[in-house]
Amino acid sequence: MMESGALKGVRVLDLTRVLAGPYSTMMMADMGAEVIKIEIPGKGDDSRQFGPFVNDESSYFMNLNRNKKGVTLNLKSQEGKTIFKEMVKEADVVVENFRPGTMEKLGVGYETLKEINPGIVYGCVSGFGHYGPYKDRAGYDIIGQAMGGLMSTTGWPGGEPTRTGTAMGDVLAGLSLTIGVLAALRSKTETGIGQKVDVSLVDSVVSSLEIINQIYLIEGRNPERIGNRYESVYPYDSFKASDGSLVIGCGNDKLWGNLCKVMGTPELAQDERFDRNPKRVAKHKEVKPLVEKWTLERTIDENVDMLLKAGVPAAPINTIDRVIKDPHIAGAREMFVDIEHPKAGKLKVTGSHIKLSETKPVVKTPAPLLGQHNGEVYKELLGIDENQLQELLDNKII
Amino acid sequence: MMESGALKGVRVLDLTRVLAGPYSTMMMADMGAEVIKIEIPGKGDDSRQFGPFVNDESSYFMNLNRNKKGVTLNLKSQEGKTIFKEMVKEADVVVENFRPGTMEKLGVGYETLKEINPGIVYGCVSGFGHYGPYKDRAGYDIIGQAMGGLMSTTGWPGGEPTRTGTAMGDVLAGLSLTIGVLAALRSKTETGIGQKVDVSLVDSVVSSLEIINQIYLIEGRNPERIGNRYESVYPYDSFKASDGSLVIGCGNDKLWGNLCKVMGTPELAQDERFDRNPKRVAKHKEVKPLVEKWTLERTIDENVDMLLKAGVPAAPINTIDRVIKDPHIAGAREMFVDIEHPKAGKLKVTGSHIKLSETKPVVKTPAPLLGQHNGEVYKELLGIDENQLQELLDNKII
Repeated sequence: MMESGALKGVRVLDLTRVLAGPYSTMMMADMGAEVIKIEIPGKGDDSRQFGPFVNDESSYFMNLNRNKKGVTLNLKSQEGKTIFKEMVKEADVVVENFRPGTMEKLGVGYETLKEINPGIVYGCVSGFGHYGPYKDRAGYDIIGQAMGGLMSTTGWPGGEPTRTGTAMGDVLAGLSLTIGVLAALRSKTETGIGQKVDVSLVDSVVSSLEIINQIYLIEGRNPERIGNRYESVYPYDSFKASDGSLVIGCGNDKLWGNLCKVMGTPELAQDERFDRNPKRVAKHKEVKPLVEKWTLERTIDENVDMLLKAGVPAAPINTIDRVIKDPHIAGAREMFVDIEHPKAGKLKVTGSHIKLSETKPVVKTPAPLLGQHNGEVYKELLGIDENQLQELLDNKII
Repeated sequence: MMESGALKGVRVLDLTRVLAGPYSTMMMADMGAEVIKIEIPGKGDDSRQFGPFVNDESSYFMNLNRNKKGVTLNLKSQEGKTIFKEMVKEADVVVENFRPGTMEKLGVGYETLKEINPGIVYGCVSGFGHYGPYKDRAGYDIIGQAMGGLMSTTGWPGGEPTRTGTAMGDVLAGLSLTIGVLAALRSKTETGIGQKVDVSLVDSVVSSLEIINQIYLIEGRNPERIGNRYESVYPYDSFKASDGSLVIGCGNDKLWGNLCKVMGTPELAQDERFDRNPKRVAKHKEVKPLVEKWTLERTIDENVDMLLKAGVPAAPINTIDRVIKDPHIAGAREMFVDIEHPKAGKLKVTGSHIKLSETKPVVKTPAPLLGQHNGEVYKELLGIDENQLQELLDNKII
């Protein structure tokens, strides 16, 4: 089915559910890998039950699982285990996001699988990783964001630590797992040997905090929550407009001069209270209302247009409706693409953000119905015929 | 120098500065690629001037540029361009994060480089990407977070849109660029042809919002800012302890029962106001104080210990000092590692979060001093001798 793409010819057995794992294998599928999603017979990925729904089909699931093939397999049955091991012989990558130890309990842990296929790349993503004292703890996104320190640095002075409004721990881990799997595939082409790629939500969050960690490691102080401004330059902050908010990023004194000019107060640029960046950082509480008084006089778009024309970096704080209608994001960059789903009909999902000039990632096929590709996959990989397939179905193996 | 690692044998010419690009090439270097960082003679990467400092050396820079070699090269000089083009013949990957069009103006854009080396993988990261109506706009992190919709979904009811407390736009783009480059390298091993990988901060942020986008695309409503709680389950939120805050994630009614029991109020589990998850979500304003009254009675760690023992998913909202001292994160997972820098001496940087079992990413060498590897690199790649090197130095080409 996937005949093109940068990862053409890479076969992935995908045991992942919900978010971090499926996001990772979605990127692989968008780039042309043959991703075979393996779900529990009769039930499937939990996220098939997550809204919003279109004709009872989960758009949560349909977004993250487009471009994948779907089979069912009961890994708790002996025959299911045997089938899975046969499939591993024909695969390049296995990805799972169970609680650590689950695959071992099922008898299909990495140590077993690499006996069967020494070239297999085994990617796993979990809350805390597959080793270390906390490995058995449950790892929801909020736990990754809390434990890794991200929440402590997000929010407002005097306010509470704040969760980033998307499942950022899962997203960071999904991206990082993809990197690890692709690096391991590269290594395998050189050595013939596969390996285990162990990515955790917590580690991924910690890695994302590079300068925040350095502030504590070097200066011994915990970075404070400072809202939308930035510690080292000002104005680099959010400002209210008549219909919402925008951000302005003046990285240096020249840009501050441009801002003063467009605000109609060029004399401010020479005002010795604010003429140099360190003074503006120290007096940010005085600078903000000077700028905001001006931005409040017009809409987000009027502000951004004037600022960009005056050479001042600025952007709307887009609500999602604005993102989805934006001519750059939705238009030129094709970040929302149509799919045609056999039950849900036509809908839009989020496109690939990794733009490759020669092997363009594309959304070719909708997410699979539960077990949709049982016939095709089990025939191709294992040579199973119609009668055998029916027997497997009857015995609830698939 | 880099003799091992999953990306052993991959040579990267790294023109990137500050954060998104250097974070991407840092991951490549940690995994064993030979990353040659090319800086402006006499000046170098802007982030060499960013604090915190150790003996006048930037720990911001030292963290993101460990494991890389450093050379200087003036790309504005004719001889500098010639040298760069010769290096491209010997490289697998070029990475840059200039404003789109800058490389073309210098005469070393992708179209030129692929004539020189058709196998070259050209990775670029920018605010808005290399095509589309906004491509020439400046792309700071805050602009990526604002424009992509992330800020609109982060924060508190009635409060302002909130920037995530690390440069998340840059981090997401750096991870995504790494994925694109590794996928393009994979494709090159199959076809011999390189390609351009174009990643933007805005697209990367949009991709991170998968379910948030779906809510608007399907239901036509903008997701609201709801603080730390979650739309579909409760209690899945933050709660105050005597010395800070923690998170609790009760994904189902059974876990709520466990929580009621450990709080010493098992009868609450049967209380028909709160016995089913949808009721708790609807009445989250009543549930929160019931739980918080109990968590406030003890410290973060006492709460988390009791909750985990009772089978309730929970975690501290770690401040950075706690992350850095944590026996799992800092201990078992080795997320902070020592380097010995020739000027700064011994310091800690953030370790690799991508745990590979056979080709373990390691921090082997400190970030380069400006031009530290000029002799080594120019000799090895171009056969330049000591006299020629001195001439290049005298003419300010390197």
